Amino acid sequence: MKIRIGIVGYGNLGRGVEAAVSKSEDMELTALFTRRAPDSVKTKTGVPVYSVDDAVKMTDKIDVMILCGGSANDLPQQTPEMAKYFNVIDSFDTHAKIPEHFARVDAQSRKSGKVSIISVGWDPGMFSLNRLYGQAILPNGNDYTFWGKGVSQGHSDAVRRIDGVLDARQYTIPVESALESVRAGENPELTTRQKHLRECFVVAEDGADLARIENEIKTMPNYFADYDTTVHFISQEELDRDHKGIPHGGMVFRTGTTGFDGENKHVIEYRLKLDSNPEFTSSVLTAYARAAYRLNCEGACGCKTVFDIAPAYLHTASGEELRKNLL
Amino acid sequence: MKIRIGIVGYGNLGRGVEAAVSKSEDMELTALFTRRAPDSVKTKTGVPVYSVDDAVKMTDKIDVMILCGGSANDLPQQTPEMAKYFNVIDSFDTHAKIPEHFARVDAQSRKSGKVSIISVGWDPGMFSLNRLYGQAILPNGNDYTFWGKGVSQGHSDAVRRIDGVLDARQYTIPVESALESVRAGENPELTTRQKHLRECFVVAEDGADLARIENEIKTMPNYFADYDTTVHFISQEELDRDHKGIPHGGMVFRTGTTGFDGENKHVIEYRLKLDSNPEFTSSVLTAYARAAYRLNCEGACGCKTVFDIAPAYLHTASGEELRKNLL
Repeated sequence: MKIRIGIVGYGNLGRGVEAAVSKSEDMELTALFTRRAPDSVKTKTGVPVYSVDDAVKMTDKIDVMILCGGSANDLPQQTPEMAKYFNVIDSFDTHAKIPEHFARVDAQSRKSGKVSIISVGWDPGMFSLNRLYGQAILPNGNDYTFWGKGVSQGHSDAVRRIDGVLDARQYTIPVESALESVRAGENPELTTRQKHLRECFVVAEDGADLARIENEIKTMPNYFADYDTTVHFISQEELDRDHKGIPHGGMVFRTGTTGFDGENKHVIEYRLKLDSNPEFTSSVLTAYARAAYRLNCEGACGCKTVFDIAPAYLHTASGEELRKNLL
Repeated sequence: MKIRIGIVGYGNLGRGVEAAVSKSEDMELTALFTRRAPDSVKTKTGVPVYSVDDAVKMTDKIDVMILCGGSANDLPQQTPEMAKYFNVIDSFDTHAKIPEHFARVDAQSRKSGKVSIISVGWDPGMFSLNRLYGQAILPNGNDYTFWGKGVSQGHSDAVRRIDGVLDARQYTIPVESALESVRAGENPELTTRQKHLRECFVVAEDGADLARIENEIKTMPNYFADYDTTVHFISQEELDRDHKGIPHGGMVFRTGTTGFDGENKHVIEYRLKLDSNPEFTSSVLTAYARAAYRLNCEGACGCKTVFDIAPAYLHTASGEELRKNLL
């Protein structure tokens, strides 16, 4: 019997999960739930669409609900609500609010006897895992996380809000010399400016004051003021042609020493290069849905994160096959 | 109360564990066990040394026994034997014999109610984990494992056995063009020769036939015949001066696609650059000793591998701290 998956929300992430589930032999997509009028949503696979309010009627038809809404407005309500009825997975990524979100989801999952896994994806997610493994193996060392080259949605939005800007795309780019220093095991202390560059492609209104726009971008607190930022003004056609994708990625490093006198240096690097940020995140969500289902079948309940999931639960193969083929 | 560690065997790996435990706040080294005359072994930290036959008298003094012998002759006997009395960790790395070793250790650990974790290190170990995570996240893709640049003990030994060779050191080196192709997501099919180079530094006897030695190396079946091999003849002084270390490392890649038509490519790379192969392995063993102890405290027993251990068990911090600081 296949694991029956439900999706809540049909943006980039929801579509990514739809694709990932359709490629997973041990899963089937049962239903999509939306806050929009269900008739207005056409799914790629033709999976039936229901109002999110009707999910509660389908507790016997869905094994794991994958929540594909946003961390700002959707997940803080949706995940605890759905955890009352289902095993759930979300990609909650507001780092500062994770403990609070965890507590609320955990309370509901314990009541319902279901498993929830929150903050799944690549950061938080795979990057977090690599920070943990790195610290555990090399307790005497330093962590470094770099993001990019990739599109930051939040920064792109911030540029778009500037007066006279019609459209924009912002790339976060790791500074090459900083990467080289970390890879060489030099354990550099790096400021915000020394770690990442920001590059903006901006479509301005006809006759807009480009110098003012560029200045407003470069001096914007929190978003750009602490970085070396490059601004390129281009046409809408160019933006649509050359900057349509949503690539991302980055690296997590753990550098540290071993030996009685710390005489031996080691560098651990985990690196992602992603053509599609949301589709990769969706693929991680889908793998953890498998884990949530299996854990719940074993009697587990409550809220978990990637830290709490033994890797074998993510893979379709048996323990015996994994030991034989992958160990 | 600290986790009380015992070490069996005092070669490079045992010394590495001694160093790693001495740097771990939550652990203390209780005893070292050897098959040599205990009086003949001087430990770096002054920890007491006993005959391995006396280990059975210390079941109330040691929480986890870390087995630091070799996979060929020591671990097949030692791990199941010690599993009768202790939680144990080993680095058994004869890939083809892992299922058999697992079964034997599992039987003893279930009888004793203890936890054993076998094949811990970096390959098998961290590399295996990354193969598993990669396949689980990107089911539609390819695996690549590269080793080096690093010293292969087995290949160095093979060269030393050649008539007229006094000493030798062999480096395994990944082929740069192969790495580039994999990193670019080209999914190349690579032969043995296309993946790794082998470089040998050889000290020959005075008057030895160097051409014959070079030819014997380059045509040696299994070890060198399938590779492009370079041979350098150097003096013992040069070997001791320039090739004393035991560095190693390598990369595990998972490259794959997502999307309904496989239209988006992704590259996951996990990379190690290690000054000391045995000390890094020892550090991984030590982190998994923490996990074995905690799992056994929770009532778990039986044989496990890195695939079965939830990452949080490896780190000294609480779940709450991990979620707050590393997620």
